[in-house]
Amino acid sequence: MTFAAAVQPSLAAPFELWITDSGTRFENAAQRVLPPAEDVPARLHQAMRYAVLNGGKRVRPLLVFAAGDVTEAEADALDRAALAVEFVHAYSLVHDDMPCMDNDVLRRGKPTVHVEFDEATAMLAGDALQAEAFKVIADGGLPASQTAALIRELAHASSTEGMCGGQAIDLAAVGTTPTIAELERMHRMKTGALMKAAVLMGALSGRVSLLTECTREALARYGEGIGLAFQIVDDCLDVEASTAELGKTAGKDAEHRKPTYVSLLGAPAARAWSLRLRAQALQAIDGLGNSAQRLRELADFVVCRKS
Amino acid sequence: MTFAAAVQPSLAAPFELWITDSGTRFENAAQRVLPPAEDVPARLHQAMRYAVLNGGKRVRPLLVFAAGDVTEAEADALDRAALAVEFVHAYSLVHDDMPCMDNDVLRRGKPTVHVEFDEATAMLAGDALQAEAFKVIADGGLPASQTAALIRELAHASSTEGMCGGQAIDLAAVGTTPTIAELERMHRMKTGALMKAAVLMGALSGRVSLLTECTREALARYGEGIGLAFQIVDDCLDVEASTAELGKTAGKDAEHRKPTYVSLLGAPAARAWSLRLRAQALQAIDGLGNSAQRLRELADFVVCRKS
Repeated sequence: MTFAAAVQPSLAAPFELWITDSGTRFENAAQRVLPPAEDVPARLHQAMRYAVLNGGKRVRPLLVFAAGDVTEAEADALDRAALAVEFVHAYSLVHDDMPCMDNDVLRRGKPTVHVEFDEATAMLAGDALQAEAFKVIADGGLPASQTAALIRELAHASSTEGMCGGQAIDLAAVGTTPTIAELERMHRMKTGALMKAAVLMGALSGRVSLLTECTREALARYGEGIGLAFQIVDDCLDVEASTAELGKTAGKDAEHRKPTYVSLLGAPAARAWSLRLRAQALQAIDGLGNSAQRLRELADFVVCRKS
Repeated sequence: MTFAAAVQPSLAAPFELWITDSGTRFENAAQRVLPPAEDVPARLHQAMRYAVLNGGKRVRPLLVFAAGDVTEAEADALDRAALAVEFVHAYSLVHDDMPCMDNDVLRRGKPTVHVEFDEATAMLAGDALQAEAFKVIADGGLPASQTAALIRELAHASSTEGMCGGQAIDLAAVGTTPTIAELERMHRMKTGALMKAAVLMGALSGRVSLLTECTREALARYGEGIGLAFQIVDDCLDVEASTAELGKTAGKDAEHRKPTYVSLLGAPAARAWSLRLRAQALQAIDGLGNSAQRLRELADFVVCRKS
């Protein structure tokens, strides 16, 4: 049985429709919440909108929405959690693409923010998007205890314990050959922390009584597994797919001498590991019943994606 | 009566001692809360610590501490609010000093973060400090309603409505001659919003029953006035003081063709305006009694400072 055949069956039509609808829902929410493009400072607002409203797979918002099913979260609360996580993700891409970091000119098939605007505007747009992420949660109408829990989750995942810390380790790793354990730690921080936060924030946006310690633990393990699987697949796609397919420069890990799962293990073993992580993630949420169905489908989506 | 004589009397010894003690208190809190310099990713942590623990006037933490007197706030809560505001301020300085913004090499008498480390680390350190600001509030032990209110205040002040928006307007204003109203709007956003937030966050960290709508409004007006006065004095010092006195490059507003209160009004009129704002700020908190004494002294401190 081929790799695709092994996990393809659950990618049925209703899920595809959910993906499309969720993407539209996210886009509409972002359009509403982001500062208007014509308001002063217009150029900053335009850059923020450009950074967020330029497509992308919206994996993190999808994780938020899917996890919200588990605790029967309301739509507005989920939209806000999805926006917050995606704003943080978008700001990290804007800053990563800048000349002092990866110096990349293409993202989601379009010029990166510092190319389309300028470096100063790109830096400010990233900074402002991070603030906007916390604002959209703080301005939500959830009970204060939930608001505080959501902020805590997002702040830790974005911080030096999570995304920023992983980025720094990534920078330091260029040209080195880390162990698999070191690479894994980096990716758990750089990509995994925010994806795990997406799952937990979706669940934290719903009914508190449905989020038992056991459910929370299951969702955390699912988020960790899927986050790492996502990054391994990213590493594989960087060598397997074309720039046109990815909408970003392909082959740049090797060009930048970045250690990856592919460079350390080879593509087949990396693919196999992503499948094992998928299986573990599914096992973690095995007891959550029908409410976790979208999360199960997303596990396949993350591992099977072509871009 | 000279300018200095007009406001000097209240700068008595006990206040000077409070300034010194508060600075030490802030420094100790920052030492405790910032990620350890030796922990991975060490270079990022070192850059974050370098950005925060390098002196500075600590005006924003002082405003937090002083406003906390009004609502009898506990020391730990105030330390956290002070750290949060100063982390945001510090991150903005790190990013502003970078080559794509002001390209400055000197800050508080030492090489700027991107000079001492490198540009990528400086960008990440700024990003991580912003996350850390929200984290230090979210991790505090205050009731959730207060935590949420503090986060809301900080997020709005840091966002495109506040600091980031003011920075963007500042960037766009280079080489132009704005009206006084436009310049004021920029400074109210760029500097004023975070200083006003410092005052309100200090008060929000204390006893909720003491923060009536009337007191909150008085503190907001005080914070706005002092924030703008601070910036006007900054503009004056940029032309009046030396690089050695300031610990940062003097005369850079004119060099960068930045419109300032001095370039628009001349230094004497700018100074006079800062005094009027001080008087208005003092009037705003006139009804708050002894608990606002430090805030009154700080109004003089901000307007009389030499660096």
